[in-house]
Amino acid sequence: MRKEFEADLAAVNDMLVTMTTSVRTAMADATTALLTADRNLATAVAARDAEVNALRDQIENLVLVTIARQAPVAGDLRALFVAVQVATDVERMGDLATHVARTTLPYHPRPTVPADLRALFVQIGRAADEMVTKAAEVLAAPDAEAATELERDDDTMDDLHRRLLSAILDRKPALDVTMGVQLVLLARFYERFADHAVNVGQRVAFRLTGSPVH
Amino acid sequence: MRKEFEADLAAVNDMLVTMTTSVRTAMADATTALLTADRNLATAVAARDAEVNALRDQIENLVLVTIARQAPVAGDLRALFVAVQVATDVERMGDLATHVARTTLPYHPRPTVPADLRALFVQIGRAADEMVTKAAEVLAAPDAEAATELERDDDTMDDLHRRLLSAILDRKPALDVTMGVQLVLLARFYERFADHAVNVGQRVAFRLTGSPVH
Repeated sequence: MRKEFEADLAAVNDMLVTMTTSVRTAMADATTALLTADRNLATAVAARDAEVNALRDQIENLVLVTIARQAPVAGDLRALFVAVQVATDVERMGDLATHVARTTLPYHPRPTVPADLRALFVQIGRAADEMVTKAAEVLAAPDAEAATELERDDDTMDDLHRRLLSAILDRKPALDVTMGVQLVLLARFYERFADHAVNVGQRVAFRLTGSPVH
Repeated sequence: MRKEFEADLAAVNDMLVTMTTSVRTAMADATTALLTADRNLATAVAARDAEVNALRDQIENLVLVTIARQAPVAGDLRALFVAVQVATDVERMGDLATHVARTTLPYHPRPTVPADLRALFVQIGRAADEMVTKAAEVLAAPDAEAATELERDDDTMDDLHRRLLSAILDRKPALDVTMGVQLVLLARFYERFADHAVNVGQRVAFRLTGSPVH
């Protein structure tokens, strides 16, 4: 029974790592599509999101089956619960990668991001990539220290997000409102993507250190 | 055992209804604060969000305790799972009400919404209110028909959202980019609030009709 439970939990965790790695690729491709105005790549990112959603459904289902079959308690039950919450966060990260990719399309073949703002978008894309990479690592090898590191990384992301907003809103000559809105939304997608990576870290830390269910 | 389980499930459901009703008030107050530039009301909405978050934590905890004590299977387990997912959606709706309320603050005492766009914001606020009211009703008295009604209401919301975006982006004279961005984000907060209300309906429908865990 114990062995079976541990095999199920390991399977759930492997699926979470796969899902997070897949979302990492999706966001990296979305950023590339955005910065190179690559319409085909953007379309591929949006299309592949269905796989991430399917993985989330499989994780939820396996968790339900495991709870029903094994009736885990306390820490084991908490670990399964955390897995479902992590899957929800990662699924949302996949949506945000899709949002970034879609922003590439209406302007094609013109790039969405004006030349003078490219460097900041490259930076925010890189920061997002580092955070999702860390989230995947924390899931693969749970570590409360590394999990809290993600909160510090998020300060860098927030700072970058603020700088990007100022650059967009204070640009001279002023951007037209449609372009300004698109760029602010884009910046927001990266910032929210990072927030969900922080959530993943916090949930893993909670699983490792959380007080038991009483 | 059966009676205890049903009492626990009823308690979880009551908390969900309370949480949803509270979020309904939060969004209604946020809309009033926005349209009347009422800074105190806006601050109160933001402050009260902590109560909604606390309710979500209580729901999660009660669900974990119930699973641990009663080891429910199949439909019962699913009902508890759905409750946690609904709580996550409703908590996010509370965040969005807070986002709307906060948008009131930087412009005070000037209203954030220009006079010629007020009517559309009144409408989108009313549409959001109808949907969260329906979500609370569906939770209080589960009904798959009413749950799917929320999806139809969302078409109205999406249409309103599109009209609002056009009105903001095509306005003559053009809005400055900062104002345009604020208004587009506001419209998006209402639209996403409605999406989460739809999720609540779908999850209730799934609980009523979903295939059993195997």
